[in-house]
Amino acid sequence: MPLPAPNFDPPFNIIRLSHVELVVTDMAKSRAFYVDTLGLQVTDEDEDRIYLRAMEERGHHCLVLRKGDDPQVGDLGFKVFDESHLDRAAHWFTSRDLPVEWVERPYQSKTFRTRDPHGIPLEFYARMDRLKPIHQQYALYKGVKPLRIDHFNCFSPNVDESVAFYNELGFRVTEYTEDEDSGRLWAAWTHRKGGVHDIAFTNGRGPRLHHLAFWVPTPLNIIDLLDLMSTTGWVKNIERGPGRHGISNAFFLYILDPDGHRTEIYCSDYQTIDPDLEPIRWDLKDPQRQTLWGSPAPKSWFEHGTLFAGATVRDAELGASPIIAP
Amino acid sequence: MPLPAPNFDPPFNIIRLSHVELVVTDMAKSRAFYVDTLGLQVTDEDEDRIYLRAMEERGHHCLVLRKGDDPQVGDLGFKVFDESHLDRAAHWFTSRDLPVEWVERPYQSKTFRTRDPHGIPLEFYARMDRLKPIHQQYALYKGVKPLRIDHFNCFSPNVDESVAFYNELGFRVTEYTEDEDSGRLWAAWTHRKGGVHDIAFTNGRGPRLHHLAFWVPTPLNIIDLLDLMSTTGWVKNIERGPGRHGISNAFFLYILDPDGHRTEIYCSDYQTIDPDLEPIRWDLKDPQRQTLWGSPAPKSWFEHGTLFAGATVRDAELGASPIIAP
Amino acid sequence: MPLPAPNFDPPFNIIRLSHVELVVTDMAKSRAFYVDTLGLQVTDEDEDRIYLRAMEERGHHCLVLRKGDDPQVGDLGFKVFDESHLDRAAHWFTSRDLPVEWVERPYQSKTFRTRDPHGIPLEFYARMDRLKPIHQQYALYKGVKPLRIDHFNCFSPNVDESVAFYNELGFRVTEYTEDEDSGRLWAAWTHRKGGVHDIAFTNGRGPRLHHLAFWVPTPLNIIDLLDLMSTTGWVKNIERGPGRHGISNAFFLYILDPDGHRTEIYCSDYQTIDPDLEPIRWDLKDPQRQTLWGSPAPKSWFEHGTLFAGATVRDAELGASPIIAP
Amino acid sequence: MPLPAPNFDPPFNIIRLSHVELVVTDMAKSRAFYVDTLGLQVTDEDEDRIYLRAMEERGHHCLVLRKGDDPQVGDLGFKVFDESHLDRAAHWFTSRDLPVEWVERPYQSKTFRTRDPHGIPLEFYARMDRLKPIHQQYALYKGVKPLRIDHFNCFSPNVDESVAFYNELGFRVTEYTEDEDSGRLWAAWTHRKGGVHDIAFTNGRGPRLHHLAFWVPTPLNIIDLLDLMSTTGWVKNIERGPGRHGISNAFFLYILDPDGHRTEIYCSDYQTIDPDLEPIRWDLKDPQRQTLWGSPAPKSWFEHGTLFAGATVRDAELGASPIIAP
Repeated sequence: MPLPAPNFDPPFNIIRLSHVELVVTDMAKSRAFYVDTLGLQVTDEDEDRIYLRAMEERGHHCLVLRKGDDPQVGDLGFKVFDESHLDRAAHWFTSRDLPVEWVERPYQSKTFRTRDPHGIPLEFYARMDRLKPIHQQYALYKGVKPLRIDHFNCFSPNVDESVAFYNELGFRVTEYTEDEDSGRLWAAWTHRKGGVHDIAFTNGRGPRLHHLAFWVPTPLNIIDLLDLMSTTGWVKNIERGPGRHGISNAFFLYILDPDGHRTEIYCSDYQTIDPDLEPIRWDLKDPQRQTLWGSPAPKSWFEHGTLFAGATVRDAELGASPIIAP
Repeated sequence: MPLPAPNFDPPFNIIRLSHVELVVTDMAKSRAFYVDTLGLQVTDEDEDRIYLRAMEERGHHCLVLRKGDDPQVGDLGFKVFDESHLDRAAHWFTSRDLPVEWVERPYQSKTFRTRDPHGIPLEFYARMDRLKPIHQQYALYKGVKPLRIDHFNCFSPNVDESVAFYNELGFRVTEYTEDEDSGRLWAAWTHRKGGVHDIAFTNGRGPRLHHLAFWVPTPLNIIDLLDLMSTTGWVKNIERGPGRHGISNAFFLYILDPDGHRTEIYCSDYQTIDPDLEPIRWDLKDPQRQTLWGSPAPKSWFEHGTLFAGATVRDAELGASPIIAP
Repeated sequence: MPLPAPNFDPPFNIIRLSHVELVVTDMAKSRAFYVDTLGLQVTDEDEDRIYLRAMEERGHHCLVLRKGDDPQVGDLGFKVFDESHLDRAAHWFTSRDLPVEWVERPYQSKTFRTRDPHGIPLEFYARMDRLKPIHQQYALYKGVKPLRIDHFNCFSPNVDESVAFYNELGFRVTEYTEDEDSGRLWAAWTHRKGGVHDIAFTNGRGPRLHHLAFWVPTPLNIIDLLDLMSTTGWVKNIERGPGRHGISNAFFLYILDPDGHRTEIYCSDYQTIDPDLEPIRWDLKDPQRQTLWGSPAPKSWFEHGTLFAGATVRDAELGASPIIAP
Repeated sequence: MPLPAPNFDPPFNIIRLSHVELVVTDMAKSRAFYVDTLGLQVTDEDEDRIYLRAMEERGHHCLVLRKGDDPQVGDLGFKVFDESHLDRAAHWFTSRDLPVEWVERPYQSKTFRTRDPHGIPLEFYARMDRLKPIHQQYALYKGVKPLRIDHFNCFSPNVDESVAFYNELGFRVTEYTEDEDSGRLWAAWTHRKGGVHDIAFTNGRGPRLHHLAFWVPTPLNIIDLLDLMSTTGWVKNIERGPGRHGISNAFFLYILDPDGHRTEIYCSDYQTIDPDLEPIRWDLKDPQRQTLWGSPAPKSWFEHGTLFAGATVRDAELGASPIIAP
């Protein structure tokens, strides 16, 4: 099954991934993780919710922690160009028989919820409260010095289907892993905002969130975070890394929050805005696509993910790979 | 004079700045500078021209060195979405009574030359030969490890006019310096590709090129370049830096090639794709806008620029500032 | 006047520079500078004194801030091998008709004060209270992440005399600047602990302290400090840098505390323990000895220093250099 | 068995570890590894030997590659204070019934070979040819930018015995791992030159060389090496890392040369010259002593080492640990 041709004329204009809500069971612990350790900035909080932004973001939130009984992932949020695009988006999802529900979201203008065909809950809006820039308030930088939310990565039971759907919405594939035997997609990285990805899909029992990712300035910030986590009680929350991905060329670290939600800390990437950008193909049998430097990822990294609220999970159609692979 | 409203519906779609031709008087010396010292990759060369690309670029060239008797800047090159946009572009420039000349450019498909109203030579094309990725061929990385061309910066005799023109083409202002007394623009940074700028304008005798810029991974690469240049005979070509700009928040270094063409080495920046991004205003009297850390730029940095081929230079309408300023 | 031969059999064994007392006029401001901004750790404090250590130090203090009416520098502290060496030291200074005064110093065992022939107040001791290691308590790292005190640098009215005296005590010259015309020393870097220097001397009205220095892990920590200082009200306290010294090859930054005491932030250096290490000679006319990258130091850096308590200052015998130089 | 008291009055003065000879089976491959990849500088070579130094070293060689039929480690070289100390050294080894053989070593003055009680071949000398400094010839820096040889690490069948012997020679313990059950040493790091170690010993079948180590400027140089090795055919020679050791606090990478000789690339460390420095004790059951960040070392790292020429290997007296540990 070949990659779909990139779609430069989507039904509405998605600017970028924007934010996600994570349901967490212990607000104090999660605050210690995301605020005190990672260094995200609190923009609002009450008993039930903490709103967070990263250092160069001017939108009100990129991450919302919501107190709940079970760890879950709420909506993956995307920003569209303006209100007319928002209406076109609602119309389009409706026309596909996907559920559209207009919701109230604090700090966001008109917002609707829907789901992709696999059940991933999505949220679209055009305007969010804008806050004063803080990227030059260096006294506020701490932890890993997160600059901005970078992407979502999801387990998909059928990556070909996921790519086809998001391709229709204008997400363009930058790199992908192909299962040579079946000719089907094992994993794909797709973007709207001009980097390697806004959202990626990996073959696996799903839909589940594999991770969200934050962009940081240099690999040394990641080393600082490792030193900090390993001497402040978070050593067991370090899952994989540091390392360099073959795919995306990113310098990475994967960590788990107190509820098992995975975050990637990410730097290096490349510009992907050329319309004639050629997607880079990786062979499922090439271990360097995962870690350029050769060290394998731990088993948990291939198996563990977080459930989306209200989504029904099913097994991956391609099954688990004979070699462990994303 | 207020900033113009951003134009999200330009007459044609410019993807990004793409390349520039520099006329140099000694090919061997310029090769030593750009290839051996900066670390750009040669993609083609003959007696008269050297074509160069940076490490993550797949287009054939971002910089062309052409042998000539006098140092000059040739066309500033921009990539448009596709051939139909190219034709619309040619039509638009013609409709503005700006000269349109279709030219043969090796490694580029259909290309036309034109000028902006101040006389800056511009070049538009849609497709350039694509080369194999080399961003993971780490044995090729050397010098400052340049990843991609980032922007052009030009002296303009009337920045308000420059901004108005490029705004019409869809370039959006991210930061600007205002002369409080006159309410006029002193300088402005405008982008197409989602960073702080593709092209910036600074009040001064012009049009002249102030600098082109390359993006590098971390400040340590800039320190490496300083060490290299200062011990291989290039110490006098180091003009300003390293430092942090207030404007753009970039970590920077300015160097001069053997003919006096200025290059900025640049890292850190931020994502500017939100349509509701608020431009950041700087006061002409705030010295930290130039160097956040306080050290002033040398006089040459405010005065020296390179002539564009065939352009007539005139004095800045606002005159030189009472305080030296970009 | 040639360099004296290194003295491997000094009258007593000085292990390393250890600490210094700075008299400051506003304890709160100085605390904000050294603790909140630089990131030194408070080990004790009362109304009159703050004791500080850097992150890898286990001795109780490397810097003591003492409240006073006028900015001054107290004793330069050195650690000797043991109490018997301390007694030999006291005996030796007495035999040279230099004043020896036994003093009580909190957290130090037996300590005596004396002066070098130019009047620099010195303090010797063998044991200081040892504190628990904190170099792996990464939550405590902040500011520039200072690891240890590295050296003192003093203006000397006669560098040949200074070097001769400290050479007798076993300090070995690693690099030096010679005034070619007179054949006399302009500046010299001398060490006990195996790096480029524990104490250095520079021709100038003196004795005065030019600066004390702290060692930090990487140049990026210095860049972090610059960003922090320039956005928290300390921008005018940044005096020179960042840059690379020709002499010592150090990556440096010079900053001034609220009373004008100068601190160098320093990284990179080299191992100097070989007994047959050849001192590196620099010509006074070589501007790269000061800044390898070519940019000159500001005038204040050549002229400003802090007075030692009780020391009489006199003009440099060599006068000011025709070119401004350390 | 408690740690022996540090011996500040050894029978002769060893300045530091100096160099090592590795017997390699394919000179071209080894040259590609150490010169082209790691970036060591060739100071002499013929068909049978390549002499190498690191960037800040002025002694002629820190590593000698010698062609042979089987991979082996030759003498571990140490520099003593002067010729009289060399003679005292020879006398001392003779008095201990250890073999003393005076040998010709190119570029070294008088040199003798001996063995420690477990059979590790040692070599002592006082003077080696001194070369011109190259630490500021930045055009020569490549690969991992190795600055100097840092230490040796050996498997010892009885670490208590090894430490007792080297302690007598003035090597001082900085950190150690104790087997709580038996109260015996599992591993120990001992120094002469003021860092964490010149030579370390780890419980294991021995004597065998576990690794030699080179000091590099920053963690980013190690990341550069990983990127280079993994894209130039050396990915399988990356064994462990990058990571931070609990012990020594070093940022590390372990790589294997074409014959399986292991090299550690090492940065961060701390100053250990205080005579009252307290050795840091680690529990054998604490996994963070090996990797502060928690990820385990591969099995090969605990088992693989290189044979010393002419040494008889025996099993570790403490046996293999119930938990794999150095």
